[in-house]
This record gives sequence, structure tokens and C-alpha cells, in this order.
Amino acid sequence: MNRQVRLRARPTGIPQAEHFEIVEAPLPPLADGHFRLRNAFLSVDPAMRGWVSAVANYSAPVGIGEVMRSFAVGEVVESRNKFYAVGDRLVGMFGWQHYADSDGADVTRRVREADIPLSAQLGVLGLNGVTALLGLTRLGDPRAGETVVVSTAAGSVGATVGQIAKILGCRTVGITGGPTKVALCREEFGYDEALDYRAETDLAGAIARACPKGVDVYFDNTAGAVSDAVMQNLAVGARVVICGTASISSWDPPPMGPRVERHLLVKRARMQGFLYFDHLDGQEDAIDRLAGWLREGKLVHREDVLEGLDAAPDAIAGLYRGENLGKRVIRL
Amino acid sequence: MNRQVRLRARPTGIPQAEHFEIVEAPLPPLADGHFRLRNAFLSVDPAMRGWVSAVANYSAPVGIGEVMRSFAVGEVVESRNKFYAVGDRLVGMFGWQHYADSDGADVTRRVREADIPLSAQLGVLGLNGVTALLGLTRLGDPRAGETVVVSTAAGSVGATVGQIAKILGCRTVGITGGPTKVALCREEFGYDEALDYRAETDLAGAIARACPKGVDVYFDNTAGAVSDAVMQNLAVGARVVICGTASISSWDPPPMGPRVERHLLVKRARMQGFLYFDHLDGQEDAIDRLAGWLREGKLVHREDVLEGLDAAPDAIAGLYRGENLGKRVIRL
Repeated sequence: MNRQVRLRARPTGIPQAEHFEIVEAPLPPLADGHFRLRNAFLSVDPAMRGWVSAVANYSAPVGIGEVMRSFAVGEVVESRNKFYAVGDRLVGMFGWQHYADSDGADVTRRVREADIPLSAQLGVLGLNGVTALLGLTRLGDPRAGETVVVSTAAGSVGATVGQIAKILGCRTVGITGGPTKVALCREEFGYDEALDYRAETDLAGAIARACPKGVDVYFDNTAGAVSDAVMQNLAVGARVVICGTASISSWDPPPMGPRVERHLLVKRARMQGFLYFDHLDGQEDAIDRLAGWLREGKLVHREDVLEGLDAAPDAIAGLYRGENLGKRVIRL
Repeated sequence: MNRQVRLRARPTGIPQAEHFEIVEAPLPPLADGHFRLRNAFLSVDPAMRGWVSAVANYSAPVGIGEVMRSFAVGEVVESRNKFYAVGDRLVGMFGWQHYADSDGADVTRRVREADIPLSAQLGVLGLNGVTALLGLTRLGDPRAGETVVVSTAAGSVGATVGQIAKILGCRTVGITGGPTKVALCREEFGYDEALDYRAETDLAGAIARACPKGVDVYFDNTAGAVSDAVMQNLAVGARVVICGTASISSWDPPPMGPRVERHLLVKRARMQGFLYFDHLDGQEDAIDRLAGWLREGKLVHREDVLEGLDAAPDAIAGLYRGENLGKRVIRL
């Protein structure tokens, strides 16, 4: 038998537990050319909100009644495909379920880092780490000595961005919510400064004090009021990497905010959206660099491990409630 | 005697006639190392609003009591500078006045196009034309077959952008206000489609119909509601060139509008501010190309010529009232 989390109803904002259902289904005979993989860890990512949204997105939305799309990592347990053998450990879009049958089209990569725990494939060596490294370097183009500001600075993407920017010789300023995450930013992720957007009565002023030469690169995971405060502090020639919009509960209709055109014009600045799937050509090189920094102890990461498939339906909503410290995964 | 237009009071929005005063002042003896130039044409540009604004900008604001900063073109009438001789025709920041004394730091270029009327140095061969060509090509990066949308499509920058995009093999869609300008766009500037934002009840829908494959390049001179409608129609990988914000009467405080982050993220699009002064390295090449197209009849331009210095104080406000058809200059 297989157990699966399926989409039951389409959310308009953040997907909640009631939008999913857990279903038991018999495993069909394995089709020719396919392999069967047993998932070890499932991923929970903010981007999954977009994957179930009816609003225009970069991929077709998950259909009602379909298994929830997600990254996962696991091991091949049966194979009728000549490229994949029993025992192979693979990362891919295997969905929120115990077993996934695939013809290989869902595979993102083979695990090559036998010395690093498998769950890292979904975080610091997966979507999050690759997004952090390629978003920062390809779109943000940071140079040594520049100031890099990161929103959701203690999150799994943000914390990696902050550490990489520091490795590249930048001054790093993290923006996060609450004293626990501020302490994490300073003590664990090595930010030069960390600001608590909940505690600051004048966030734009606090950013100005933390970035006396202005913000050269803003790696934005939030949009909203935090971004509005950063945009007031851009340096000439600044690059803004739009990676996520965690602070916006619904884009239908789009919320209003202060217009950004004048900042972009006066500062000759650039804002650009980053999507992991456009940068798969750089994935393996990025993972090599990330794994190298991990092994050298230059890069730390945190995980928030939920136990069992029953934790999945509420897991995305939990991300948006801010209850995790580190990359959220589900161990099966 | 010299006649000058000086800034009398600092406007918070668009500078009006009452913010300026006309003053007669005796011409001082010419200082050693300086030359004296008699202005033939003064420029009137939307960007001049920014030059008198107290809000953060790319240059220090014109001081109260100072001659209004502007581009101008004229002829050297007296010289104690070894690089500039009587009779030289020069473009530079010579200000709204009959005579300008300069040590050469204000000079933008020497006029090299003896066969083209001098006023063109302030428009299609000056700030407007160079901005159109370099903004479009350096930031917009249009490729043949792509769709380029231009706001203030009949304006002196916009009309040049539209024609260059067409020369480069793009499909061009202009957005402008009123039937006269729509007709100009279609008949004189060669746009494939022209939309009247005042007449359209659903501008976003009209843009979608005019751009069935989406908007690859948006050359934005307006911000505001026109831009909001274009942003809904970006193609994947779109480039938005922020060149001006003509529709916004004041940025203090910044007006609210629909947030753009989701468009940029989902479409992996880029928004970037363009400033002429950052691209002076490309100026002479740009003017050579523009002059070539002018001589071949591939590029047309219009001028709106005001007569005499007395027309200057109200001239910027007039631009924002939309009363000009073509590049506005003042003939002295």
C-alpha cells in the first residue's frame, strides 16, 4: 500500500491543512521503463504555495485530487528502467507520498555526497542552497566590500545567502523576526548586523544605520513592509534579487505598496526575479561549492524535521506562521 | 547684459511658472581659462523636475537663486580657453540664460553634424535620442521578433524608442493619450499598434490583445496606472526599462500602487533604472547611429519650439500638462 497527501481544495492564499487529504492506495504493478522509489524525506517549501495557486505561475497548478507536488529524496526499491538501479539514491519531484513511480522525468539529480546526511539534499544542497548561491551570485553579483541585506535572514535560503555573502567578502545585514532569530543570525550565521523588524519602530532608519554606504545587494524573500524599508536605502547601482514573497498572504488581488520606480531610477538599480528551475545548468557546480563549504565548516545549516506523512497537510501553513527554525523536511 | 531664469522657490511636485524668476544681470569680465557661449536653443525636459526637487536624486538640487540647470546648444562668442575657440558650436549644461561662461566642465559635446539643424542636438541627437537608443539597447536588450511596449509613445524619447525598436526588427506597441497622439504613433512613428490609455476601459486587456506573446521589453516613461497594466502582461524573461515617471505628480510621499514582486518572480523579469549620465561612454557612437538613421529617413522626430526666454518658467509644467507634440526647446 502507498500513502499519499492529495490536494482536496484549491486555496486562495496560503494552503492550510484542510486543503489536503491523506489517502491510502494500493501500489499498482510497476510499468515497463519505470522505477519505484521509497521516499526518505519530503520537502516543505514556501514556493509550494504557488504550486497550488490558480493565479498565473511558472508551472501548471497541482490538480484537485492529485498528489501534492514536492521535492523528495529517497532510494530506488524496484526498477524496470535501465538508467536507475535498486539502491540508487535520487532527488526529484517525487511528491508527498511514501512511494513514487517514475520514468526518470521527475529526477533532479543523483545523490553524490555519501558523507552528508540525506536530508541536506532538500535544503542546503537542494532547492534552498542552490537558490541562495545562484540567486545571490548570478542576479545579485556581489563584490567584496559591498553590503548585502537579506530578508528572512534566518530562513533556510536567507541564512545560506548571508553566509555565502560573508564568504565572498561582503558586509552582511540580516532582517528577521523576533529575538531568537536575531540571535541565530548573529551567533550562528555570522551576519555583521541583524535587525528585528518586529521590534524596530523605524526599520528604514535602522537599515540606514546598519548600512552607512547603502544597500548594494538586497536578497528579498519577503516583499511587503520589510522590502519597502530596504528600498529606501539602496546604493547607486544596487541589485535586488526577488526570490520569494513570504510576507504577502494573497496576490489575488495584488496588495498595494509604495511604488518603486523612483528608487530604481534615481539609484539606477535593478530588481529581478529568480527561479531555481531556470538555473539547472549551474546546479551541480553550485552543489559542489556548497558541499565543499559544508565540509570545511564554513557553512552551517539548520533543519526542522517533522515526523511522518500526517504532519504534511499543515506543514506549509506552519512555515508561514514562522514556527520553524531551519529548513523544514518530513521524515518518513 | 545677460538674461537668466533663476529658481525662486523649491517646488514639491511639478515646477510651475511661479517657482522661477527672470533676472537681468550685467555680464562680468570673462575669467582666464573660461569661454563665453551665446545659447541658441535651451532644452525643456521632464527630468528637470528632479533637478529642482529636494527629494533624493542623482545630482544636488539647483539652489534657490541659481540659474536653472538645463541642456543648451550655442556658439562660443569669446574665449580665454585654449580648447574652445570663437565660433565653436557646443552642447552642454549651459542653463536657462542667454550667455553662459564656462571653463569647459559643462560641455557635453562638440556639434559634429553641420548638416542637421542645431536644435536636434537637444532632442533626437541629444539627451532624448541617446536615452532612447542606449536605454533600449543596453537595458532592454531587444531581439528581432520580440514585442516592445513604450509608454508616452509619442513623446520625444518614446517616439525614438519605438522607431529604433522597429529598425531592430521588433513588434512595437505604443501607449499614449488621446486620438491625435495615437494617430501620430501609427502614421508617423510606425508603431504596429497604438493604444489610447484615456479611451481604454480595460487597458490591461487591450495590451494583452496587442501583445499576444506577452511584453518582452517595456520602455517605461510614466509609471502609474499605465505601467500597472503593462506589468500584468510581461512575457517570461521580460526587461522593464525605467526611464521616467511622468504620470506621478509627487514622490513625497511615494504614491501607492500594486506591488510588482510577484510579476517579476513569476516571469523572471527585470526592472532597471536608466540614467543618461551613466552612459556617456556610449554617447558619440549613439549619436552617429541616430544621425545616420536621420539622414536615411528611417528616423523622424518632432519639435515643439517656444520663442524666447519668457516662455521658460512655464515650460516644464506645460510638458506635464501634455501640451507639446515633440521635443520641447526654447529658441533664443
